[in-house]
Amino acid sequence: MSLSDFSARADRADQELDKLSKLFAQLNSSQENSPVDANELQRLQEENRILKEKLKSIENSTTGSSTTTVQPESGDGDEDEVNPWDVKASSEKGVDYEKLIIKFGSSPIDAALISRLESVIKRPAHHLIKRGIFFSHRDLTFILDQVEKGNKFFLYTGRGPSSESMHLGHLIPFMFTKWLQDVFDVPLVIQLTDDEKFLWKDLKMEECQRLGWQNVKDIIALGFDVNKTFIFADLTYMGQCPSFYQNITKIRKCVTYNQVKGIFGFDDSSPIGKISFPAVQAAPSFSSSFPFIFGDKTKVPCLIPCAIDQDPYFRMTRDVAPRLGYIKPALLHSSFFPALQGAQTKMSASDANTSIFLTDTPKQIKTKINKYAFSGGQATIEEHKEKGGDCEIDISFQYLKFFLEDDEKLEKIRVDYTSGELLSGFLKKELIEVLTPIVQQHQEKRKLVTDQLIQEYMTPRKLNF
Amino acid sequence: MSLSDFSARADRADQELDKLSKLFAQLNSSQENSPVDANELQRLQEENRILKEKLKSIENSTTGSSTTTVQPESGDGDEDEVNPWDVKASSEKGVDYEKLIIKFGSSPIDAALISRLESVIKRPAHHLIKRGIFFSHRDLTFILDQVEKGNKFFLYTGRGPSSESMHLGHLIPFMFTKWLQDVFDVPLVIQLTDDEKFLWKDLKMEECQRLGWQNVKDIIALGFDVNKTFIFADLTYMGQCPSFYQNITKIRKCVTYNQVKGIFGFDDSSPIGKISFPAVQAAPSFSSSFPFIFGDKTKVPCLIPCAIDQDPYFRMTRDVAPRLGYIKPALLHSSFFPALQGAQTKMSASDANTSIFLTDTPKQIKTKINKYAFSGGQATIEEHKEKGGDCEIDISFQYLKFFLEDDEKLEKIRVDYTSGELLSGFLKKELIEVLTPIVQQHQEKRKLVTDQLIQEYMTPRKLNF
Repeated sequence: MSLSDFSARADRADQELDKLSKLFAQLNSSQENSPVDANELQRLQEENRILKEKLKSIENSTTGSSTTTVQPESGDGDEDEVNPWDVKASSEKGVDYEKLIIKFGSSPIDAALISRLESVIKRPAHHLIKRGIFFSHRDLTFILDQVEKGNKFFLYTGRGPSSESMHLGHLIPFMFTKWLQDVFDVPLVIQLTDDEKFLWKDLKMEECQRLGWQNVKDIIALGFDVNKTFIFADLTYMGQCPSFYQNITKIRKCVTYNQVKGIFGFDDSSPIGKISFPAVQAAPSFSSSFPFIFGDKTKVPCLIPCAIDQDPYFRMTRDVAPRLGYIKPALLHSSFFPALQGAQTKMSASDANTSIFLTDTPKQIKTKINKYAFSGGQATIEEHKEKGGDCEIDISFQYLKFFLEDDEKLEKIRVDYTSGELLSGFLKKELIEVLTPIVQQHQEKRKLVTDQLIQEYMTPRKLNF
Repeated sequence: MSLSDFSARADRADQELDKLSKLFAQLNSSQENSPVDANELQRLQEENRILKEKLKSIENSTTGSSTTTVQPESGDGDEDEVNPWDVKASSEKGVDYEKLIIKFGSSPIDAALISRLESVIKRPAHHLIKRGIFFSHRDLTFILDQVEKGNKFFLYTGRGPSSESMHLGHLIPFMFTKWLQDVFDVPLVIQLTDDEKFLWKDLKMEECQRLGWQNVKDIIALGFDVNKTFIFADLTYMGQCPSFYQNITKIRKCVTYNQVKGIFGFDDSSPIGKISFPAVQAAPSFSSSFPFIFGDKTKVPCLIPCAIDQDPYFRMTRDVAPRLGYIKPALLHSSFFPALQGAQTKMSASDANTSIFLTDTPKQIKTKINKYAFSGGQATIEEHKEKGGDCEIDISFQYLKFFLEDDEKLEKIRVDYTSGELLSGFLKKELIEVLTPIVQQHQEKRKLVTDQLIQEYMTPRKLNF
């Protein structure tokens, strides 16, 4: 090895040494400047955990005792609890809807109203109405009056996008809304409350928006007329149309904290996002929130088909409407789609076995129904033949009420199951046969929904009606 | 040098290198294994502080002794009251700003900071700073650090458009902001809170929007660089940019009713519009509320020049910023522009005689000053010559402090008035001579502001900086 080789090697080593020394000094000093102590971090994390626990226990104890207008007598144990975030039935038959009508102050949909509806639309009512699943209303007669006078109204419904895939229960209001749109030939607005989900759930905002986009595919797959339907997500639409925020602000001027506390059960530790949210769900009830659809017509009547747990929002909306010079929205309330385990339990998006999802395979549908669908039958075949089954609590029968359109067939099943002639197994088989093609066809249609088509539905634009 | 010398040197270097490499690896891995991150520590400290506050406010609210952060001792009578909707001074010299700094927890702008500012901007500070009218700050040093590092920040200020024509006091933050924009060459966003005015005042929404448009003319007349300035009105901008609502929603998720109750003094009968509004004034502090200006840069520092009564909004903003991963806005606080009748009284838009309006004629200016400007002089000329005038309470002198830029001349007036050599009449004459051309020139410039120019300032667009 030559001298020059060594010289070069030593020089390189010196350079390398110099570089490393500097880096080392830097690294060391950065640690000194911000003396981040692992112990301190641990202490803070522990403190954080304790503080959060403390806060949670306070929040639980205060929400536990704060009664809402929705369930003023929740303390006595045999009352159902129904609000936008919680539905609890005290009986195995599920929520007592007759009581709820009285409590909420809505009106029952009776035979006379159904026959009036049928005479206006000149065809039979939807089976969800005839079978009492849409069981309650506000101002439906006013809407029918308008139709008879040749005036248009618009439909408004919505969805809180909190899960990737929707289950059968989520389909109900949309299937029914689609029928209303076809029958009345009216425009429809569908709200995705991605802001609500962000405020209530421990989810990132982007995730709520993504779930909204996924849910829109399921909604579009139901076949709403693209020329008559505007779908919007709050976190986007708010930044597309000043009229929407302007209406929300007008509503927020009319509603006090005391009022929303009473209606929705908020408390002083609720974030101001939750407290002010109800105005966001209220605003689409007014046609002036959609100037590109309704022009300067601020008094186009609105009909809202929804599950009855959403009624508190619209009671509030109906309160403020006259003060803003707007028309009170009319409502059609549905009962709840029961969980497989029975009407008393709640379907849970986090427990895949509580419902049939729109993504389920035929095998999953079959297994879930056979394994989990709560039976109204008796313990033994002998006992069943003797005493008969109970349709009121049999989930297979309940699901058939939602999805089997053939009235005669359903009635025959009811009679034969009640008499004990049919076993639960038959109802399960029947339900599997009804649901499997519905879910499969939905999946086929959903596949055809492109991003471009979604964009079309979600673009603020003129509608044809 | 022999081969063996080199060989020894190279060996030593190798050893040294090896040692350092190991140390370096150790240091690095110790950081990785226990990723003690200064940011995480800070975040936890901040979160724990907020959690503690939240717990405290819950405890306060349940015991019923809820005191507000703004005026904890407001009951004892000799405290000034300063919040966004009310300013009441207990002394005729006006608000005690030194006390306010302590109460609000901000920092005084002292001689050292002014000289640091001057060394950064390489020119004298604005007379509003030198004369202590902008007297308090939060994190101004952080902004100066950024400037020295060659980093950009942006300015944010605003106005609540509640009256047709602005008065001299309204000009102050804008004049000063214009100077900041010129000196630092940075983008500026100006918020018109027409939604706030609608929520607080008994005005129609359209009227609040119209007043906003009128006020924008006065703001533009001050000569803000159109290439660096974006002016927006909430009721319109909310519907133009989803990011704005998205940031507002994020803020509203972090702030509870208890917190805004504590900071702003809301109560249970407050409309939910007021309760949720603070998030609307907070959001423009974050660069992500203006994606067309800042692209995907969500951490551009923000400096907010404002009157100190607006500080509660930004205390709240600074609380939530770290939880959203944003930078706390820095602030420059001004004292209040006194009413003609004295620093203890409040200027009122409904009483034209409490201030000079930007629409006043030279004759009105002259009459108002001569008739209403509170004098710090003595009852008779003899007494005045003997005892001298009191600049602290003399409104003409106070107004000159805001508008007479010539330091020497102002100082001479101060000395001669204090000694009794100058009478109040001289100060009034001087003030009339200073203000008349300012107001007249403003009116000339305002006339040149076309609707098209307003539209240009108010269009969401790229800015040059």
